[in-house]
Amino acid sequence: MDLIARLRAGLPGEAILTDPDVTGSYANDMASFCEAGTPAVVVLPRTVEQVQHIMRTASELRVPVVPQGARTGLSGAANASDGCLVLSLVKMDRIIEINPVDRIAVVEPGVVNAVLSRAVNEHGLYYPPDPSSWEQCSIGGNIGTASGGLCCVKYGVTAEYVLGLDVVLADGRLLTTGRRTAKGVAGYDLTRLFVGSEGSLGIVVRAVLALKPEPPAQLALAAEFPSTAAACEAVCEIMARGHAPSLLELMDRTSIRAVNDMAQMGLPDSTEALLLAAFDTPDPAADLAAVGALCTAAGATEVVPAETAAESDLLLQARRLTLTALERVKSATMIDDVCVPRSRLAELLDGTAAIAEKYDLTIGVCAHAGDGNTHPTVCFDAADPDESRRARESFDAIMALGLQLGGTITGEHGVGVLKKEWLARELGPVGLELQRGIKGVFDPLGILNPGKLF
Amino acid sequence: MDLIARLRAGLPGEAILTDPDVTGSYANDMASFCEAGTPAVVVLPRTVEQVQHIMRTASELRVPVVPQGARTGLSGAANASDGCLVLSLVKMDRIIEINPVDRIAVVEPGVVNAVLSRAVNEHGLYYPPDPSSWEQCSIGGNIGTASGGLCCVKYGVTAEYVLGLDVVLADGRLLTTGRRTAKGVAGYDLTRLFVGSEGSLGIVVRAVLALKPEPPAQLALAAEFPSTAAACEAVCEIMARGHAPSLLELMDRTSIRAVNDMAQMGLPDSTEALLLAAFDTPDPAADLAAVGALCTAAGATEVVPAETAAESDLLLQARRLTLTALERVKSATMIDDVCVPRSRLAELLDGTAAIAEKYDLTIGVCAHAGDGNTHPTVCFDAADPDESRRARESFDAIMALGLQLGGTITGEHGVGVLKKEWLARELGPVGLELQRGIKGVFDPLGILNPGKLF
Repeated sequence: MDLIARLRAGLPGEAILTDPDVTGSYANDMASFCEAGTPAVVVLPRTVEQVQHIMRTASELRVPVVPQGARTGLSGAANASDGCLVLSLVKMDRIIEINPVDRIAVVEPGVVNAVLSRAVNEHGLYYPPDPSSWEQCSIGGNIGTASGGLCCVKYGVTAEYVLGLDVVLADGRLLTTGRRTAKGVAGYDLTRLFVGSEGSLGIVVRAVLALKPEPPAQLALAAEFPSTAAACEAVCEIMARGHAPSLLELMDRTSIRAVNDMAQMGLPDSTEALLLAAFDTPDPAADLAAVGALCTAAGATEVVPAETAAESDLLLQARRLTLTALERVKSATMIDDVCVPRSRLAELLDGTAAIAEKYDLTIGVCAHAGDGNTHPTVCFDAADPDESRRARESFDAIMALGLQLGGTITGEHGVGVLKKEWLARELGPVGLELQRGIKGVFDPLGILNPGKLF
Repeated sequence: MDLIARLRAGLPGEAILTDPDVTGSYANDMASFCEAGTPAVVVLPRTVEQVQHIMRTASELRVPVVPQGARTGLSGAANASDGCLVLSLVKMDRIIEINPVDRIAVVEPGVVNAVLSRAVNEHGLYYPPDPSSWEQCSIGGNIGTASGGLCCVKYGVTAEYVLGLDVVLADGRLLTTGRRTAKGVAGYDLTRLFVGSEGSLGIVVRAVLALKPEPPAQLALAAEFPSTAAACEAVCEIMARGHAPSLLELMDRTSIRAVNDMAQMGLPDSTEALLLAAFDTPDPAADLAAVGALCTAAGATEVVPAETAAESDLLLQARRLTLTALERVKSATMIDDVCVPRSRLAELLDGTAAIAEKYDLTIGVCAHAGDGNTHPTVCFDAADPDESRRARESFDAIMALGLQLGGTITGEHGVGVLKKEWLARELGPVGLELQRGIKGVFDPLGILNPGKLF
């Protein structure tokens, strides 16, 4: 095959996978309801020059290229299409530099988030973005989807930590964007354009990341509420009063019960919402006391502040187990990612409960409540066509509600193939036209991750 | 004149200025060495619809449009070109919403930075970006140049506070970008593309801005050093140890003497560098003590911590007066804006001193030292052609040095016409080609602020 022969001219044999049994395992990320094709070849480059060779070859032969990190994404953005070249960046996993004075790290895209986090910790530094998949997901994937996580409520998302990039363009040329400096405004912000572009504009081969000083260990509190409205009122009060929690998470009744069923955590059955707050401030106990009082004032029936890091971990365990617990409810789940202004959070939660009832489905919600970013998780039997249809419809109904409440269809998971139609709705025709125009500037042949985003 | 007649069809008479004595006063921002032409007309719209009418008219007639805020810019980005339409946004100055729960403000572009800052303070909120011109400059201008300021070392630049925009495009269509939510990753980040685009991609007519809780009042410290190297060592130590000052400024010998000459502040003549640090933490005195110790260890000959807000103000006054003091040295100044990794700050300062000596000029430097962002200010006699030439050459030499040290030609002032050639050097041909491609997507006729950036 011409493609394979051309690739071999610039890549070692072990970097090229063609056995269908092997390449088939690179077809999907972790999203449900997303079509995936069969790749013609999977390549695993180790150098920038090899990536350039791959992209030059793909451009010449007009072969679609699907960039992949750890494939922990939840929108199908890394799914293969038939006959595509899968470009996996997992072998480019070096941490090139950690600089405590400039508070930056320079890394290759395949570095696993947790590996980087631990490495910078050893220098007293902190790389905040912490998607739930942080033990598996790669920095390149995080950049591609502009990932969030639990700490965003205080520290922001991946986009705020990407200072500069080396990117191999569709035609194989190398572009350097951004800077190593704390500030810089030289020209349009191409760095930010690549963050969240889901592999559709170029292949990130190196990133300069901003780091923070490592904060004190966080201390958490759990508060039980008799209604989601009361819990959301507490969230609004906490944020309006100027508190800066390092985590502010909410679990709804369905999530609580799923976790109880799985792990016998003994959360009271009458609890309609569980709020978890944490502080990594110099005096977290004082902050927890203030926030606990706000929870009580909003109607919390019980407030449990941790006094040690171990107790905090125990409190947060319920939240960590939520997705696993919901995955046991039925054979399949679809995780939504609607983000609304936090003042509208109660409406989104109540509306989601109404949608679950209308479609006769179990939909558990956990939320990065401080950011208004919810993950309604639709549980369904994938073997049941009617239930699958209702699952998809309820999933869409939640996005429609999010837009109606002034929110976005995706707070942190991205668009991929899962939410393409919805992206068009959110952006409108003018926005979509401009986005397509930008795509055309970077990828005139349309070979980079075609069929994703729009 | 056809242009004026067409404008009148959608604008009230008082919104259209054609008297050359009046329009001439809109020719310039505050940059030196930047050409400026004579506008054909100045328009002062008050509504989005009026801006749309203006842009439709300009598109139809192919009239170049120069958007302007308060014209406090320092790169000539707001300078008129001959026959252009100056689109001044200063009359669109409403604060539309301040929302403490969602921690956002929605504003029109003409709102003055200080007016917004004070308005949000009344709600216990904080809009951090604080350019030196904050009492005059407008939010629209801040967005156009991605402005910085003194507090960036802790709070970041304007770009980090712009969540969403309404933009009138070159052809008059209205685009809404971004969001009102804390997070969101729906499509390419067009919001960030507009921030720092210097009016070359569209006309910002409304912005959703993120706010922070108002921090405690800051407390400052001044430390005198016998060399810039010692002061820069202190800066590196402060940042490497994980401190989070709300301000970390440096003045070199030339700046100190200029301030002494003007204001008789009694700073010792032997001081080669003055470092100013401030903290707005819960216990600023403790932070100042720690930072003071680091300054002493790095060689500071005197460390003066303030004990009250009034004392802090007094200490910071020297920094505030620097530019005014340097402006008295000669008839004209050129303010540079080179930003380097903070680990290279000492090299930039020493190199700038060598450049001043080589070109036989007074160049005073004040710096947002914590960010590595320096403002070498070249003092020269504008009536002396040779001195003017040397001023321009030294200005360029400082940018060359900044790039050589891994920095950028502009940390916060932007490119405008002043640094066009240097933008091309910093970006390189591939980056420049892509930037031009993006410009073409938004402004195919090339009528938006032509001749700026590239």
